Amino acid sequence: MSAQIGVTGLAVMGANLARNLARNGYTVALHNRSVEKTDALLEKHGDEGDFIRTESLQELVDSLEKPRRVLIMVKAGAPVDSVIEQLEPLLEPGDIVIDAGNSHYEDTRRRESALAEKNLHFVGVGVSGGEEGALLGPSIMPGGSRESYDSLGPMLEKISAKYNGEPCCTWVGTDGAGHFVKMVHNGIEYADMQVIGEAYDVLRTAAGIEPAEQAKIFNDWNNGTLSSFLIEITAEVLAHTDARTGKPFVDVVVDSAGQKGTGRWTVVSALELGSPTSGIAESVFARGLSSQRDQRELAQGILEGHEGSVELPEGFVEDVRLALYASKLVSYAQGIDMLTAAATEYGWDLKLDEIASLWRAGCIIRAELLDDIMKAYAADEKPANLLLAPAFAEAIAGAVPAWRRVVATAVQLGIPVPVFSSSLAYYDGLRRKRLPAALTQGLRDLFGAHTYNRVDAEGTFHTLWGEDRSEVEAVDTH
Amino acid sequence: MSAQIGVTGLAVMGANLARNLARNGYTVALHNRSVEKTDALLEKHGDEGDFIRTESLQELVDSLEKPRRVLIMVKAGAPVDSVIEQLEPLLEPGDIVIDAGNSHYEDTRRRESALAEKNLHFVGVGVSGGEEGALLGPSIMPGGSRESYDSLGPMLEKISAKYNGEPCCTWVGTDGAGHFVKMVHNGIEYADMQVIGEAYDVLRTAAGIEPAEQAKIFNDWNNGTLSSFLIEITAEVLAHTDARTGKPFVDVVVDSAGQKGTGRWTVVSALELGSPTSGIAESVFARGLSSQRDQRELAQGILEGHEGSVELPEGFVEDVRLALYASKLVSYAQGIDMLTAAATEYGWDLKLDEIASLWRAGCIIRAELLDDIMKAYAADEKPANLLLAPAFAEAIAGAVPAWRRVVATAVQLGIPVPVFSSSLAYYDGLRRKRLPAALTQGLRDLFGAHTYNRVDAEGTFHTLWGEDRSEVEAVDTH
Repeated sequence: MSAQIGVTGLAVMGANLARNLARNGYTVALHNRSVEKTDALLEKHGDEGDFIRTESLQELVDSLEKPRRVLIMVKAGAPVDSVIEQLEPLLEPGDIVIDAGNSHYEDTRRRESALAEKNLHFVGVGVSGGEEGALLGPSIMPGGSRESYDSLGPMLEKISAKYNGEPCCTWVGTDGAGHFVKMVHNGIEYADMQVIGEAYDVLRTAAGIEPAEQAKIFNDWNNGTLSSFLIEITAEVLAHTDARTGKPFVDVVVDSAGQKGTGRWTVVSALELGSPTSGIAESVFARGLSSQRDQRELAQGILEGHEGSVELPEGFVEDVRLALYASKLVSYAQGIDMLTAAATEYGWDLKLDEIASLWRAGCIIRAELLDDIMKAYAADEKPANLLLAPAFAEAIAGAVPAWRRVVATAVQLGIPVPVFSSSLAYYDGLRRKRLPAALTQGLRDLFGAHTYNRVDAEGTFHTLWGEDRSEVEAVDTH
Repeated sequence: MSAQIGVTGLAVMGANLARNLARNGYTVALHNRSVEKTDALLEKHGDEGDFIRTESLQELVDSLEKPRRVLIMVKAGAPVDSVIEQLEPLLEPGDIVIDAGNSHYEDTRRRESALAEKNLHFVGVGVSGGEEGALLGPSIMPGGSRESYDSLGPMLEKISAKYNGEPCCTWVGTDGAGHFVKMVHNGIEYADMQVIGEAYDVLRTAAGIEPAEQAKIFNDWNNGTLSSFLIEITAEVLAHTDARTGKPFVDVVVDSAGQKGTGRWTVVSALELGSPTSGIAESVFARGLSSQRDQRELAQGILEGHEGSVELPEGFVEDVRLALYASKLVSYAQGIDMLTAAATEYGWDLKLDEIASLWRAGCIIRAELLDDIMKAYAADEKPANLLLAPAFAEAIAGAVPAWRRVVATAVQLGIPVPVFSSSLAYYDGLRRKRLPAALTQGLRDLFGAHTYNRVDAEGTFHTLWGEDRSEVEAVDTH
């Protein structure tokens, strides 16, 4: 008996992916640096399907049908390189090495290029859904050569999450495309969570709605356009009462949000691509600020009592829902803009409708909204920006007045709403006929001779600010 | 006759630094890859001081007193490495190589470390003030070994800008510290310009004040706490009438702001350091969005007419001034927070008062405010955040109500104020007793078992969300 796929690295994520494969009828060869993990998995779950136990990478490789498929699930970074280095001499041209960890897409590009030279396929796969998703069906974002997908794709599609029966797995693009798309997914996830937090904070602080009561509101919201996994579990967390104190759970948790770095990666990449992902950036910074506990504690003693007071508009809860929805749309628009910029930069033929489709189930940001986003990009005329797709332009038009009221209210009451307000600024910046960037260009021309363009003439110009202020045609040499 | 310093790379910045040195009594050896530039400089400005003409790097090196000082002013990146590579074999232990270009601090760290192995000093120097500053006195931020500064410092101090007679030049710290500080300067410059743009936009759109009239307002503001070079030249640009059309100059300039990349570098570095520089990030993104002309033009036809209308509060112009001032303070607070984080990360003993002092004149962000910032960090008790220094805590307390009114007004009127609002969110986030980050942690624990801390107990905890929701003590292994 030979195995269709081998898995090396049997911590929770690797073990669950291996079990998922076996439960779906594949024979899975197992390997882990220390064989105890392999044996523990076999003892606990060996009856879930056909596993082959191996003690070395050589044994793992020998147990596989050809072309071989070896899935690596180890810590991102040097450990991945180390496993690849050990594997490579054991493999033959045409074999497929799969990295299903949270690798940076630049690493994946490098590794793919190096292995391609040895006629090996390297497939960087983004996997979202956490431990449970890995076992029961994650959203899967594979990159790499189209050829490798012919052999690997059917297996990945089979173990992936399904949305109305359609697999949440499709070939994304060459080399690092899969990990890039997963990174952007995570960036959007940061923003999604932050706007939920802002909605919660506004409802609690401005409207005085306690967590248990808010749980009902979020449950209610989960039946409408906001319907999503994160809204669903927000209701769950807000409904939870701490057993030790009898207080709302959310009140006993330290309010410093951790991060693993993928949100940060997303923003760095957006900066390099020149794509304005302000909402994602604000959500990363909000976590950072929340973790500066020393400064925050000092500030609480010094910067007190600068809040105003306002009368809440009627229908305030519904206003907050619309503000959350509109801000969320902006995060998606920004994430998708990054994808578009990356497609050009890296030569990826990203299909935005397919990417949206594979986020519809299995992953953390899964939401009804993604089905609509998929449809918007499946249309013959692709929108230049998500917000300009007819359905979303209309949806946001309906939300804007409420969105403005909520941000204005929060600002007056001293409630920080960095992503609500940043997203609104993006929306207004995008649609505005004139931006003060013209003044910025004037200043840059004055102090640095950086030149400017005119609205009424071709060419590049410079004003002789230090002389008679006449205008000269210029070549920007800076 | 031997020269005290050699300059290689005689484009405008290098030529002006060389002239500045000569005008201050130093003998300056000149070198350029093509000798035409050297000769052009000598022909036009040869009578300004003592220059030595050289045609090769060997000649340049031979013309210098020992230890030699060679200042490189070429394009950042590979050209700097190329010049260093050519210079290095010509130099002797103890010689000093100076890179006065806009290099990335990581490059400077790498180069310093490589040359230190050969007993050569490498000094990365941040220079701000543009072409005019280079000639008449820039702000100078030198890094590198303390020892090299003993030899080089007096010369740099002599040619630097002066604030009340004090040189705007001081040793910043080892290796890349000088270029890092210059980078943060530029990041703050981005935010400074953006908040000026937002003030202009709000005054024009909300209050209907035309550019010429605004020029008077900015001139007026330049006499108060906002007094600064950028406010001064804003008045100049706004007062300027386009000769061709008779329109305000600012109305004939295309409203897409360019960037050279240092703002972007600042935000990338802040992300790596975990320092929340949201205002600087928003200003970088605002430039990016302004340059997405295709999307903007489409959006103008689709996302029209979502503005509200409000009655302007009394004293609105003064409100805008205070909003600008408070937002500016936040940008400085964020930039300084980055410096603090970098000092820890890179082992730099950065003196924040000295850094503030050398930005008081010569550079683009020069402002009266910087003298106050210097004093805040010269105090025995260093503030943990600029906003917590007594003088600034009081100043911002005075500005906050106006700041809230302006942001709320802009938001209602559809005027994008990304940095005004982001800075206010930072301020409120910093001073708030509880942040919704607690909810974020709850969600992360639910979907990813990322664990959380409790406000009332030591340790790390996890709730068994999928089981009976009891709480277990956990070790975060993710």
